[in-house]
Amino acid sequence: MTSAKTPVRLQAVAAPGQPEVTPALQSLYQSFEQELVVPLWTEIGDLMPVHPRSRAVPHVWRWDHLRRLAARAGELVPVGRGGERRAIALANPSLGGRPFATPTLWAAIQYLLPGEDAPTHRHTQHAFRFVVEGQGVWTVVGGDPVPMNRGDFLPQAGWNWHAHHNATKEPMAWIDGLDIPFQYAGETQFFEFGRDEISEAERATPKRSRSERLWAHPGLRPVSVVAGPAGSPLFAYKWEHTDRALADQLALDREGFPGAVEPGHAAVRYTNPMTGADVLPTIRAEMHRVARGRETVPVRETGSSVYQVFDGAGSVTVGEHTWSVTRGDLFVVPSWQPFSVRSESGTTDSDSGALDLFRFSDAPIFEALRLDRVATEEAAR
Amino acid sequence: MTSAKTPVRLQAVAAPGQPEVTPALQSLYQSFEQELVVPLWTEIGDLMPVHPRSRAVPHVWRWDHLRRLAARAGELVPVGRGGERRAIALANPSLGGRPFATPTLWAAIQYLLPGEDAPTHRHTQHAFRFVVEGQGVWTVVGGDPVPMNRGDFLPQAGWNWHAHHNATKEPMAWIDGLDIPFQYAGETQFFEFGRDEISEAERATPKRSRSERLWAHPGLRPVSVVAGPAGSPLFAYKWEHTDRALADQLALDREGFPGAVEPGHAAVRYTNPMTGADVLPTIRAEMHRVARGRETVPVRETGSSVYQVFDGAGSVTVGEHTWSVTRGDLFVVPSWQPFSVRSESGTTDSDSGALDLFRFSDAPIFEALRLDRVATEEAAR
Amino acid sequence: MTSAKTPVRLQAVAAPGQPEVTPALQSLYQSFEQELVVPLWTEIGDLMPVHPRSRAVPHVWRWDHLRRLAARAGELVPVGRGGERRAIALANPSLGGRPFATPTLWAAIQYLLPGEDAPTHRHTQHAFRFVVEGQGVWTVVGGDPVPMNRGDFLPQAGWNWHAHHNATKEPMAWIDGLDIPFQYAGETQFFEFGRDEISEAERATPKRSRSERLWAHPGLRPVSVVAGPAGSPLFAYKWEHTDRALADQLALDREGFPGAVEPGHAAVRYTNPMTGADVLPTIRAEMHRVARGRETVPVRETGSSVYQVFDGAGSVTVGEHTWSVTRGDLFVVPSWQPFSVRSESGTTDSDSGALDLFRFSDAPIFEALRLDRVATEEAAR
Amino acid sequence: MTSAKTPVRLQAVAAPGQPEVTPALQSLYQSFEQELVVPLWTEIGDLMPVHPRSRAVPHVWRWDHLRRLAARAGELVPVGRGGERRAIALANPSLGGRPFATPTLWAAIQYLLPGEDAPTHRHTQHAFRFVVEGQGVWTVVGGDPVPMNRGDFLPQAGWNWHAHHNATKEPMAWIDGLDIPFQYAGETQFFEFGRDEISEAERATPKRSRSERLWAHPGLRPVSVVAGPAGSPLFAYKWEHTDRALADQLALDREGFPGAVEPGHAAVRYTNPMTGADVLPTIRAEMHRVARGRETVPVRETGSSVYQVFDGAGSVTVGEHTWSVTRGDLFVVPSWQPFSVRSESGTTDSDSGALDLFRFSDAPIFEALRLDRVATEEAAR
Repeated sequence: MTSAKTPVRLQAVAAPGQPEVTPALQSLYQSFEQELVVPLWTEIGDLMPVHPRSRAVPHVWRWDHLRRLAARAGELVPVGRGGERRAIALANPSLGGRPFATPTLWAAIQYLLPGEDAPTHRHTQHAFRFVVEGQGVWTVVGGDPVPMNRGDFLPQAGWNWHAHHNATKEPMAWIDGLDIPFQYAGETQFFEFGRDEISEAERATPKRSRSERLWAHPGLRPVSVVAGPAGSPLFAYKWEHTDRALADQLALDREGFPGAVEPGHAAVRYTNPMTGADVLPTIRAEMHRVARGRETVPVRETGSSVYQVFDGAGSVTVGEHTWSVTRGDLFVVPSWQPFSVRSESGTTDSDSGALDLFRFSDAPIFEALRLDRVATEEAAR
Repeated sequence: MTSAKTPVRLQAVAAPGQPEVTPALQSLYQSFEQELVVPLWTEIGDLMPVHPRSRAVPHVWRWDHLRRLAARAGELVPVGRGGERRAIALANPSLGGRPFATPTLWAAIQYLLPGEDAPTHRHTQHAFRFVVEGQGVWTVVGGDPVPMNRGDFLPQAGWNWHAHHNATKEPMAWIDGLDIPFQYAGETQFFEFGRDEISEAERATPKRSRSERLWAHPGLRPVSVVAGPAGSPLFAYKWEHTDRALADQLALDREGFPGAVEPGHAAVRYTNPMTGADVLPTIRAEMHRVARGRETVPVRETGSSVYQVFDGAGSVTVGEHTWSVTRGDLFVVPSWQPFSVRSESGTTDSDSGALDLFRFSDAPIFEALRLDRVATEEAAR
Repeated sequence: MTSAKTPVRLQAVAAPGQPEVTPALQSLYQSFEQELVVPLWTEIGDLMPVHPRSRAVPHVWRWDHLRRLAARAGELVPVGRGGERRAIALANPSLGGRPFATPTLWAAIQYLLPGEDAPTHRHTQHAFRFVVEGQGVWTVVGGDPVPMNRGDFLPQAGWNWHAHHNATKEPMAWIDGLDIPFQYAGETQFFEFGRDEISEAERATPKRSRSERLWAHPGLRPVSVVAGPAGSPLFAYKWEHTDRALADQLALDREGFPGAVEPGHAAVRYTNPMTGADVLPTIRAEMHRVARGRETVPVRETGSSVYQVFDGAGSVTVGEHTWSVTRGDLFVVPSWQPFSVRSESGTTDSDSGALDLFRFSDAPIFEALRLDRVATEEAAR
Repeated sequence: MTSAKTPVRLQAVAAPGQPEVTPALQSLYQSFEQELVVPLWTEIGDLMPVHPRSRAVPHVWRWDHLRRLAARAGELVPVGRGGERRAIALANPSLGGRPFATPTLWAAIQYLLPGEDAPTHRHTQHAFRFVVEGQGVWTVVGGDPVPMNRGDFLPQAGWNWHAHHNATKEPMAWIDGLDIPFQYAGETQFFEFGRDEISEAERATPKRSRSERLWAHPGLRPVSVVAGPAGSPLFAYKWEHTDRALADQLALDREGFPGAVEPGHAAVRYTNPMTGADVLPTIRAEMHRVARGRETVPVRETGSSVYQVFDGAGSVTVGEHTWSVTRGDLFVVPSWQPFSVRSESGTTDSDSGALDLFRFSDAPIFEALRLDRVATEEAAR
């Protein structure tokens, strides 16, 4: 976007809390426009609302549509230096047609054909991949090939070199999450191209990355690593661990012990094992499991989230919208909009048929600045 | 701003790194528009630049113009519940005519007539006042009347109740700084009205506030205060302390000892005495003094700043713009634009005639998230 | 120990840096004794040495001896309220006959007969169990039965209720580590008795504790847990994870990738998954694996450590002492004494036959206070 | 103290919670002695008490006695390399005749004759000076001469080079506080001699040190200083600031506003302006003012304190001891002993005649490790 100078336009209006409209006032407002200033008293309702009034709106994107568009892009759009990635991003209907899922978050489907590479680069934007289906791509982080399989979560802290290569005979699609809109607003972005070709060593296809071999051991860290980067040194959180943690939590809940968020609702947060804090400085990521036949209590939070259905089916309510959702569907929860989930009904409270929801949000930003607030629906009303 | 749904508009263009324009591609882009998605490959240059390319532009606002407009508003616009404050904000020429000095910062001149009150309210937006001239207004924070005099800096951490009253026979103008644009983008704002009237006790006009009596003692804190709020418990940083600190620093520099930022350039940062950190969670505030006949080394930083000339005269260079500035003038330094100052020439290197610059910025946000970078001009080029 | 008043006794001696011995000086020293004061100049060499000179001495305790004494105590000494635990502690030869392995650390063998219980209590002293052999005891922490098996590490942060019960037909021995000497010196200890009987629910013998089901998932934490206690919420670190982490680290080392402490020497630290920091506020715990035929570089550190050989055999050098050690043997490394390990020689560099050393130390105390120093032998000499 | 090996000595006794005394048990205990082990069950009462039972005892040292002994030492004991300082330390009656005021704290009177120097050295022990009377000595810290006057507090973080010189015609005495016993117990001490002579530049006698010129401005810090050392960069906290802070706090109390610790009892803590935390990593320092005719509520705390009366007179109660105290008197409050103060009675509640108490303690150690507890007497009983 080029920086076009936009004139200030003020209209004197008769409204509660506003000064009486007179020729003198209109003349003053014209002087304001000339001097490039704007009064608070005409803007305060928009700028300083009683509680957050999101510009972003709730919206759902269907996975089968996204998947089809991505496949078609696979036929028409090559991946290479310049475009960098075959990624197609969600554009919230109320954010000016820009590829922003929410005011702070980017969410895209990325698609890579058999044998294709996405070239090496790095950037200050924090990123992750989440795999809702398929397998066969390795993300190479700082020279370390990391396999991607259904259910895996792969964080990519800013300024790490990274590339992708598809080592199979099938195309693969997954989602990318980044803080692009936040860094765009804050103007903190740096970007650097890496080598044009992926090396032979980087083309390896191990079952576990070196990062996982060093870091994916519960409660243990290598003694040799003293200081850390901004984000997690663990480049993949495998589904088998996430699944087991959720199953354990729901089982504890059924046995009457604490641990679940609420009855029938388990949730784990991906964390940086060096700090126990969020996996990325600007992005929180979680996996939620809602047992069959359960409904969660509506919650409002400052900041925004993007969800993807990982498994199961049910309906979700965001503000005044309710949608039925199924595997792969993505939707956004804007700031301070009440959100709740209802899983498919069923005769059993076991894990089978539970609704699994992957979530990411901008919560670490606002918690670091102590601007976070949470309210259950009862308290918020 | 109401949330109008804006359609996605994509244009297939032949450009480096872009796929060839074909009817099939154009058809695909139409499908993208229908599904509310946007590809990365057409946007990456704007969204992920090699270094920050600020949308905000450098601009200067002249104090005498602002002062005149504020005085005229004093004649036409009452202060009261609803409009809340007679504040007139800088609107960066490239930020859509909105009252945003930079993408994250609000800066306004506020004006209060003799005997006038600005009513009590509170909000999550962090704020401060800085007084370039005049006196006679007390800001009442949580019931504690705090005097405002030339050179004083008054932070106002979010969610503190506050009001203003002018106890003199003269109007008074000062500047307000807030993180309104940042919280607007993040949608984290809460606002609450207080009592409509200022009480008799709040109308007191002490020379020192209770906050200063508790907290304005160097290196000392009351033992009774254990936990603190988000921002500084010290509600005023008096000019006499700031001035002395700057004079001491320049004297040390002349004597050959460390302390100044660079030769002839002293600077102090306002801090929260409970933590030693920035005075507000989202806003950094500093006072700089450049001795006569000095020129500072150009520096680039991520994030943006607003400056006001407090005393003296000189010229400032922001990116490709250079302006002569004098007392009260305000200007903005957008992200990653090189910034330098040249003070008026003179035969003496003493403090008299030095250029004093008040500065505030969004640096604490990006430092908390480890997105801060600084480069001197040589390194940046 | 009762507080017996000990008189001050000063001797005037002729020594470098000491004043000349005269009748007047002797008279002054008598006055010092009467007033209960002591001059620095006679004590400085002891109190303020050029580098730490440990009062504790290196020493080794043999596991088979300890095991035999513990078994005999099992015949003669009941476990119950008052004595609380059948624990027998290492007494460093130079620490006054007190049960202090080092100036800050307690290390004991604990022994529990078939069907026996050790009653519930809690204390501010931080503690852990480490199992070098055997199985069949459950430690009940806050009502949660935690199984103990060979290789498991069980931290017990201060002020948690805990008990032990032996659910098998075999006696079991393990080691307890605590910060008893540190809290004794600092006089920060509180202690409270719990219920006299272990409940039926506490007598359960699950394979995994509830704590492990919530917390032993790599990089994942339950979303429901917001604030934490002083130490780790994970009550057991199972051997299978520790073993795999060490094997992975040595394999990476053999493949030429970073991760190991030095060639052939892998090490993991037990951490609190909520913070990534040490597992207990005052105690660091680690497991080291030295591949066959390797020798580690001598290292000096401030603070003291206790080691137990978990598996394999080799020789260790502490200061001027070298001992051959084998499974179960315990030894101490006092402050600033150089320490190195030599594993048994062998024709293979694989994991089989490696020397596994469990270590605990007081490092978190001195790191929190920034009093930690480390030097490799070359640098230290 | 040399490391003499002390044999373990165990006595089988018939006591509650102890096993029955039999020849077999006595034989077992002999085996324990041979193997250098000690059972928990005979020691638990001493090692793990229900609450801290201090080995140190309350004690008072009279300033006039200390002053007289120091003056006599001035006649007999030279100051120079080797002995380093003419400092005479308080030896708690129950701590083995060692120069330890409490288990963690050293407190000494230091004495310097006209024209004398105490040579430059540095050590890891954290230190401070507090001046109860006199003037004329400058402490040189890292080459920066810092004046010492009545009421001034001069922290000296570990590993700073420092020396003292007396630039007047009068002797001067003050107190030194250090964490010598704590670092002695932890064995973390390093020490280094500096140049033998104080340079001409270091002999300067400015009214304010360079450190004060940079740092003694309330709420302000030099922008140029980014990272800090372990302790405060401010080398002197002048009495005029401390006095004013206390007077302000008592005045607020009289006016009915919060700020004082309790009615009639003001207190300020010396803090590191870079962090707002305690002035030294291991030592807390505070000044308390108790208005005439007031009595403080008894308080127990873990950890120990040393007090010196700075001004006024009154009586203090520590555990079961009560003493009348006056200017310069020093006394210790051991861990968990209830402590209260009663100031001289008077007809006025003004500041004149208030009892001013300087206090230092080991609280930062135990707060860093979350081992701190506080109870008012009512709660503690």
